[in-house]
Amino acid sequence: MSERLSQQLAFLIEADKLKSVSRASSLSDNSRKENSGEHSWHVALYALTLAEHAEPGVRIDRVIRMLLIHDLVEIDAGDAPIHGDHDAEALALAEQQAADRLFSLLPTDTAVEMRALWDEFEAAQSPDAVFAKSVDRMQPVLQNLANGGGSWVDYDVSEQQIAERVGAKVARGSPALWEHLRGLITAHFSAR
Amino acid sequence: MSERLSQQLAFLIEADKLKSVSRASSLSDNSRKENSGEHSWHVALYALTLAEHAEPGVRIDRVIRMLLIHDLVEIDAGDAPIHGDHDAEALALAEQQAADRLFSLLPTDTAVEMRALWDEFEAAQSPDAVFAKSVDRMQPVLQNLANGGGSWVDYDVSEQQIAERVGAKVARGSPALWEHLRGLITAHFSAR
Repeated sequence: MSERLSQQLAFLIEADKLKSVSRASSLSDNSRKENSGEHSWHVALYALTLAEHAEPGVRIDRVIRMLLIHDLVEIDAGDAPIHGDHDAEALALAEQQAADRLFSLLPTDTAVEMRALWDEFEAAQSPDAVFAKSVDRMQPVLQNLANGGGSWVDYDVSEQQIAERVGAKVARGSPALWEHLRGLITAHFSAR
Repeated sequence: MSERLSQQLAFLIEADKLKSVSRASSLSDNSRKENSGEHSWHVALYALTLAEHAEPGVRIDRVIRMLLIHDLVEIDAGDAPIHGDHDAEALALAEQQAADRLFSLLPTDTAVEMRALWDEFEAAQSPDAVFAKSVDRMQPVLQNLANGGGSWVDYDVSEQQIAERVGAKVARGSPALWEHLRGLITAHFSAR
């Protein structure tokens, strides 16, 4: 037990580093960039709050578990802004290596379980993963709308690009959520 | 549906403010104080990772839900450091008022549900709440051990005071976890 617990605590202390990974999006009050630790909390709260908009059969508690661990790989691989340029293949490799290192800090059975959950999220095929991805893409949209454009301004992103890069994934998890968001985005760009 | 969704999104945008509430404890690398948003993520990950140490019957997904919302009231009431002086009665009142305001941003049914979950956490009587409280108290201990003393140094806290203020609550949720932590704390104070 003590050996298992030591491994679990080592993993949790290592996870603390996610609070120092900076993201492209800013807080709603525009006071600073968001970090990936607090982002992970916020998207988990999104999933809990918006559960009724998920497709039938989605298990929200599994979605929340996924979202708690979905960005841990950024401790090694960093955050790749959705509107920035990056080498997708190199990034995927770096994230796989990060997952290998981080989850193997845990006792083997837990490591396998958490890795499978992260792999499921990454694959974005199961209903739970599709909704988790949808929520993960939606949260920065709301932040940007609240703070006057945020990363859309920084990266010179058009309404059309948001629909392509973000909308498709939000809509896959919940068409109704995307329809609502699209209206807010259109209003934002019209007012600019 | 659109009205419900608007209320849910207003709640989620308001929740963003928790990322600007500063806590007494610092990150593991001592680079800055932790905020209550990222703390909420970290303790939820603690619950997920340490689930096997909970008493039989504890439902970890309910514990995680509690931990996602447990500190929201700090948006209005601020964080009251466990080792600091504060007027417990005034704080409890401020937190109740904060809960009234924040949860009522949500559609009524969800507001009632989340408020009940927060009340259960605060009451610290149900097995799920007792484990959630245990994890919430444990995380700053690990942070302090990692960063060389942290808030124990800032507040001039003794090993005995940690046992009284923190240990009792950790042990209530999981005696085995507290036994392990107590060993680490003793080693830390012996080395100082």
